[in-house]
Amino acid sequence: MFSEGNKEMHQLLGGKGAGLAEMTKLGLPVPKGFTITTAAYLAFEKNGNKIAQNLMQEIINTLSNMEKEVNKSFGNIKAPLLISVRSGAPVSMPGMMDTVLNIGLNDQTVEALGKLTNDERFAYDSYRRLLQMFGNVVYGIPEKKFERVLCDIKKIKNYNTDLSLTVDDLKMVIEKFKQIYLLERKRTFPQDPQEQLSAAINAVFLSWNNKRAKIYRKKNGISDKLGTAVNVQEMVFGNAGEFSGTGVIFSRSPSTGARGMYGEYLANAQGEDIVAGGRTPVALERLKRSMPKVYAKLAAMSNKLEQHYHDMQDIEFTIERGEIYLLQARAGKRTSAAAIKIAVDLVNEGIIEKEEGLLRVSPETLEQMLHPDFDQKELQKEVVLATGRPASPGAASGRVYFTAAAAKKAYEKGQEVILVRQNTAADDIEGMVVSEGLVTARGGMTSHAAVVARGLGIVAVVGVNELEIDEQKKIIRINQTVLREGEWLSADGTTGKLYVGKVRTVRATVNKEFSQFLRWAKTAAKVEIYANADTTTDLKAALNFGAEGIGLVRTEHMFFKAQRLHQLRALILAQNAKERDVPLQRLAEMQQEDFYKLYKVAKGKTVTIRLLDAPLHEFLPTTEPEIALIAAQNGRSKGYIQARIAELKETNPMMGHRGCRLAVSFPEIYEMQVEAIILAALKANAEGVRTVPHIMLPLVSLAQEMDWMRDLLDKKVNKLFEKNNVILNYKIGTMIETPRACLIADQIADKADFFSFGTNDLTQLTFGYSRDDIGAFVPEYLNKKILPDDPFQVLDTEGVGRLIKLAIAQGRKNNTALPIGVCGEVGGDPRATAFFERNNITYLSCSPYRVPLVLLRMAQEHLDKRKRDNSIDTQIKK
Amino acid sequence: MFSEGNKEMHQLLGGKGAGLAEMTKLGLPVPKGFTITTAAYLAFEKNGNKIAQNLMQEIINTLSNMEKEVNKSFGNIKAPLLISVRSGAPVSMPGMMDTVLNIGLNDQTVEALGKLTNDERFAYDSYRRLLQMFGNVVYGIPEKKFERVLCDIKKIKNYNTDLSLTVDDLKMVIEKFKQIYLLERKRTFPQDPQEQLSAAINAVFLSWNNKRAKIYRKKNGISDKLGTAVNVQEMVFGNAGEFSGTGVIFSRSPSTGARGMYGEYLANAQGEDIVAGGRTPVALERLKRSMPKVYAKLAAMSNKLEQHYHDMQDIEFTIERGEIYLLQARAGKRTSAAAIKIAVDLVNEGIIEKEEGLLRVSPETLEQMLHPDFDQKELQKEVVLATGRPASPGAASGRVYFTAAAAKKAYEKGQEVILVRQNTAADDIEGMVVSEGLVTARGGMTSHAAVVARGLGIVAVVGVNELEIDEQKKIIRINQTVLREGEWLSADGTTGKLYVGKVRTVRATVNKEFSQFLRWAKTAAKVEIYANADTTTDLKAALNFGAEGIGLVRTEHMFFKAQRLHQLRALILAQNAKERDVPLQRLAEMQQEDFYKLYKVAKGKTVTIRLLDAPLHEFLPTTEPEIALIAAQNGRSKGYIQARIAELKETNPMMGHRGCRLAVSFPEIYEMQVEAIILAALKANAEGVRTVPHIMLPLVSLAQEMDWMRDLLDKKVNKLFEKNNVILNYKIGTMIETPRACLIADQIADKADFFSFGTNDLTQLTFGYSRDDIGAFVPEYLNKKILPDDPFQVLDTEGVGRLIKLAIAQGRKNNTALPIGVCGEVGGDPRATAFFERNNITYLSCSPYRVPLVLLRMAQEHLDKRKRDNSIDTQIKK
Repeated sequence: MFSEGNKEMHQLLGGKGAGLAEMTKLGLPVPKGFTITTAAYLAFEKNGNKIAQNLMQEIINTLSNMEKEVNKSFGNIKAPLLISVRSGAPVSMPGMMDTVLNIGLNDQTVEALGKLTNDERFAYDSYRRLLQMFGNVVYGIPEKKFERVLCDIKKIKNYNTDLSLTVDDLKMVIEKFKQIYLLERKRTFPQDPQEQLSAAINAVFLSWNNKRAKIYRKKNGISDKLGTAVNVQEMVFGNAGEFSGTGVIFSRSPSTGARGMYGEYLANAQGEDIVAGGRTPVALERLKRSMPKVYAKLAAMSNKLEQHYHDMQDIEFTIERGEIYLLQARAGKRTSAAAIKIAVDLVNEGIIEKEEGLLRVSPETLEQMLHPDFDQKELQKEVVLATGRPASPGAASGRVYFTAAAAKKAYEKGQEVILVRQNTAADDIEGMVVSEGLVTARGGMTSHAAVVARGLGIVAVVGVNELEIDEQKKIIRINQTVLREGEWLSADGTTGKLYVGKVRTVRATVNKEFSQFLRWAKTAAKVEIYANADTTTDLKAALNFGAEGIGLVRTEHMFFKAQRLHQLRALILAQNAKERDVPLQRLAEMQQEDFYKLYKVAKGKTVTIRLLDAPLHEFLPTTEPEIALIAAQNGRSKGYIQARIAELKETNPMMGHRGCRLAVSFPEIYEMQVEAIILAALKANAEGVRTVPHIMLPLVSLAQEMDWMRDLLDKKVNKLFEKNNVILNYKIGTMIETPRACLIADQIADKADFFSFGTNDLTQLTFGYSRDDIGAFVPEYLNKKILPDDPFQVLDTEGVGRLIKLAIAQGRKNNTALPIGVCGEVGGDPRATAFFERNNITYLSCSPYRVPLVLLRMAQEHLDKRKRDNSIDTQIKK
Repeated sequence: MFSEGNKEMHQLLGGKGAGLAEMTKLGLPVPKGFTITTAAYLAFEKNGNKIAQNLMQEIINTLSNMEKEVNKSFGNIKAPLLISVRSGAPVSMPGMMDTVLNIGLNDQTVEALGKLTNDERFAYDSYRRLLQMFGNVVYGIPEKKFERVLCDIKKIKNYNTDLSLTVDDLKMVIEKFKQIYLLERKRTFPQDPQEQLSAAINAVFLSWNNKRAKIYRKKNGISDKLGTAVNVQEMVFGNAGEFSGTGVIFSRSPSTGARGMYGEYLANAQGEDIVAGGRTPVALERLKRSMPKVYAKLAAMSNKLEQHYHDMQDIEFTIERGEIYLLQARAGKRTSAAAIKIAVDLVNEGIIEKEEGLLRVSPETLEQMLHPDFDQKELQKEVVLATGRPASPGAASGRVYFTAAAAKKAYEKGQEVILVRQNTAADDIEGMVVSEGLVTARGGMTSHAAVVARGLGIVAVVGVNELEIDEQKKIIRINQTVLREGEWLSADGTTGKLYVGKVRTVRATVNKEFSQFLRWAKTAAKVEIYANADTTTDLKAALNFGAEGIGLVRTEHMFFKAQRLHQLRALILAQNAKERDVPLQRLAEMQQEDFYKLYKVAKGKTVTIRLLDAPLHEFLPTTEPEIALIAAQNGRSKGYIQARIAELKETNPMMGHRGCRLAVSFPEIYEMQVEAIILAALKANAEGVRTVPHIMLPLVSLAQEMDWMRDLLDKKVNKLFEKNNVILNYKIGTMIETPRACLIADQIADKADFFSFGTNDLTQLTFGYSRDDIGAFVPEYLNKKILPDDPFQVLDTEGVGRLIKLAIAQGRKNNTALPIGVCGEVGGDPRATAFFERNNITYLSCSPYRVPLVLLRMAQEHLDKRKRDNSIDTQIKK
């Protein structure tokens, strides 16, 4: 019986059963009933999907107790008991399993019910519903067979809705339904209520393993082993006249989180009338007008439930002749914005603690909130052109262009641009910066295109297999559709879907509650969150979201602006030290200005600058006309440029002449960058902005490499101090991004002020997976379950994680306080954040628009950990 | 005194001193003398490079004892004692330090000596020599100053050699030498013998730190802290008339190892006459004729020394008026061939044990022996055109061609070819196979070019920076020299040197002694040696050298023959399973034939076949005309081929769609290969050649990958067994070549029958170094000592080694008998072999021509280990 359970008994009673028990306990009006437990289901399954004799006996016994309590009984023609049989799994699986209502009706009791309620139409309507649901759920007769009968009669009689059906009509329908049983299954409808009950329980048990339930569980990671409970409950009738009805209320708005009850109501109807869609429910205001007292009672119940559960509630209710019955109450689903507002409000109202508030919001929610989305209503009208991988969330519409140069030109004309590329290389960044969105035919969620797009905060859909690009004809083909350069395309980076034309978007804003929420998260998180940012715009956004500073400035991105690129190319094309001098000096000046601006915005917060990492060939042109242009600009022959390009070309550039390896060959580049960093910091300091530059070396794999670099840079810095007659605190740290660096991290730590894991490169090298090439095989690996996840999205704790743990232990062997961060793309992966929290990482750095997500995730991680620790404490105390 | 020391006292007495002591002990005729120890030297150094009073006193005391013994004394005009002062370090540094002879002569004793010996000319000649050496060594007067005086007088008097100088001439020379002292150093020659002695000792001590000695020590890894000993010894005179002379003998031939004394002799001369080059020594036969008894005595002494030292001896001797004196005896340097013959002969003669014989030969020696070499005499005439990296040893001359196709054509015309490429890709193999040698402008010692060349056993010089190739004009330029297609070039893969034209070569043969030696090595080595071989030719060579079988068949090499390539391309270009069918079947037949042939030659020895590893794009053409041809051959449009090439192109092919990843996408390729392997083995078995196929999977990184592959292949094999109604023992193992595979080796081991480390890929991924691209930065790393060695040549035991150790431990956790091999390129690296021996590796696999080297190295490693173990045992027993 419901009165025996409570809300903690989810596992045994299922969500619905536990909820009903809890509400019964609270004294709320819940129709009487009991729950057949998941343990009973598991016995059923073990018994070859048959209800064992003893279980059936127990059900009958419980039912008979219930009969006594409600003073009605099965098949009794004076007081016939009608019941519902509903599924209710431990984890909510809305609409996936079956339900049978109105059990207990038969040719006799239907008449009794008509007399008792003085409403023959209601009685026959209920009987019709039972025949329909029982036929469908228990005998598997297709729903449409019954629907056709109803449609036919409404057509003949010219009725608009089911409500127009008369008693005679219903009696005829019932006869036709009985014929369907005979025609379709050669069976009659069982007149014995107990037979109805046992068949219904059996069917609802079986629905645990129907196809859609299995798919749903698989998709949502719910174990097949849980099993379902079944709730047997006295019927209450929303279809018992105009003072009856059914509805759903939320204790606060699920769209905006606004305080106050919110919901929908349908008079003289049962739940399935809403589902069937024949009639449209109305806002709750109607109820307030028609039955103000009932409305007030409902509001009080809603409030009581929210206070009790400490969360916004989604409540199903039925009104039977002015009496309210609650059929279900559970935490309500809500939009991103509502989730945050509700959490913040509940805290401010003193209903929950801040910590609890932080645990109430799913981190993914925050990311969604920060990107504009397509207007869902408009979207429903659109046809999906193709679906790629949703690499950078949000919605973007623009005119398609196929090269960075064309995109730039269009942008300068004031156009909105969607850049469409086979895949992207470093020199596409200029085009990406000016684009609303990026669409590529190749690449995965962490391909160059995807990473840069997320970094830039632009929408990206990558790996659209159907996409064919003809750069010469300036057209793209997707399946049958052809788009010319300049035509409109819309890309949804949250779903990966593409639409022809322009779709309207709605942009979310960072409101008061969101800011407050982020401040709480920051306080709760033990791990610090930094942003990967190359511009003051990025940095401002990141600080606004609560970042502690910059964990990664990718200096190579700064070189892609035209003037810098020109100087950098002059540097690369130089034949001797003298020719290198002028471009080096120019670049130093420009970089100094870049860094100075960042320092000013950072206002003393950490700015970690990674020295040049990209291979030099990425800065040279690839096409004939570009080569000709560069040749002219630099006063070189085309042949010279081509020779230099050929010389710098690499078979596996990822493992080639890049990172600090460049500085071993050309120390002057790093010296130039360090000069820019130090002079910028001196200037900022002189202006009262206390700045401690953090200089980060990429791709260090050898202790001697670290020693050599440290020596080179310390010397350079000291010269600058001498020249300027001033000193400054500064740090030199290193990326840890090759397996070897992890293996000898103790040696590297001797000369490094901090570590920062580059999980992308580390994952690439640990697996031997080129991030830009995995599109060719990783999908098949995922498909065949050889890989559980894309390791660039979900940290491989077994392999890569082992190296990271080793590196942390080694790195802190002689310096327990060594700051160790992560600046890869795994900040949004819950397994990774838990892993890093557990392994005492100092900070995580991610793209600015991911800061809120990661911040919340790390706050939750820490709160969870504290909970676990407390529970361990308690156990120990016991 | 020499009689107090012995041969074990190298460290204190130096090599020469210990040798003189030992010979004295053996009763051999050694001029009397004593050794000033290295300890004395170290005291000298500590004393600010000054001889301390007490040391000088000790020297004087010892000298006075010696005077008594020989019944002569310093400055005595009746019996003047003349002595030599020679350096003698603990480790031989031939010619690096100084020597002063004839000390004790002055204006008085020279006359006395003339009278005593009745040979005034000899006396003055000796005095002249003293003045010359003392002036040079002690006062640092350039040698040429003295030489000019001698030249002048010979010119004036029209003499051919120094021997023509008369007593009067010599007296005049002596006067002129004394004037040189005054002119050059404003000093006189000290007439006091004791002053001469102390100055000479001082000078010889100082010569430990002269420039060339320091460079020599650095180059040969000799510690600067050892110091030198100094030998003070009574003079004996080879320049005392026609029954006097000096020479060098070897107890066996140092060129061929042939038994019997071998040497050179110069009558009436001292050692420096030979060095000065004025007179040419003659073969020892002359001595046999002129002084048969002396010759016989010498032979007896040579024999006695060899018996005593258990090794071929290099002996310096002087004959003074028919009396033999031995001045030095040491193990003689020898050629590769001699080293082996001598070791084998000494064992067979019962002089040394087999184990000792194995330790006597340097493994590098064996590799040298197997490659033809340029005729050294011819080479001296040639000008070195350029020097690259000596990637595959041996000597080759041929006509230069610049493409694989041109090379093939030339080969078919019967020409010898040197293939010259910028660098090589897989499809250059066809060209390499037909070439004598390969020269590339790029790449390091383990670049594709280098590895394949060594595998094919062809000569290769790679990374010739000065090389410019103009494929269109069909010329190459190296510095100022231009070579046209078809012109002759010679490449020395042992030294890395290139020569214009054709240089004659000499090919070494594998003789009886060599075979015997290899058999001993095989018995002594604990680790088994396999070969990397793709053809029966390779396999035969390997077996001939003592390999246990094949550790690595690279199946992709088999696909490069024209017919196969055609079928493989048809397979790659196929659009569906049906189109794939025919080429798959053809390839299966051809591969079956390949494997069958290998099994037949292997005669039951293991043949380990690695399934396809190379990315598919390597098999597609790259140039326009090739694409057109392939299109025509396959009945496809050029556009189709180009599209497929574009589709397969990868940014980092090393980390892309290759290895077992191919089989996840196209299981039919591995199934085809396994079918070929099993059917070939069944056929060989049916013919009585018991064959257990070893199938090896490349690039496994995941436990699930191993499971999936194992399942796929086991199923295929079982189907074949069923179909043929026969079964067969077979093994499926895996390469361990990614860091991740090492980290989770325990999981992989559950399904693998054996492991084989791929050290090349593992090194690439651990460091993040692309083997084909390191030419751009590793030389600078080596140069700046940031890297101690190229990690592709010398195993990085710190980083890569740590992963290997981890993988071995993990792999054997649940299966202590798991066979674990290595098939990388590190077999020739002594640090690597020691590492693998220490870590209980089961086998090493290397290119066939490296088998002897690795075999010997592993034998020595094991013998050394046993020695170490024994010495530990002894220590424990003590």
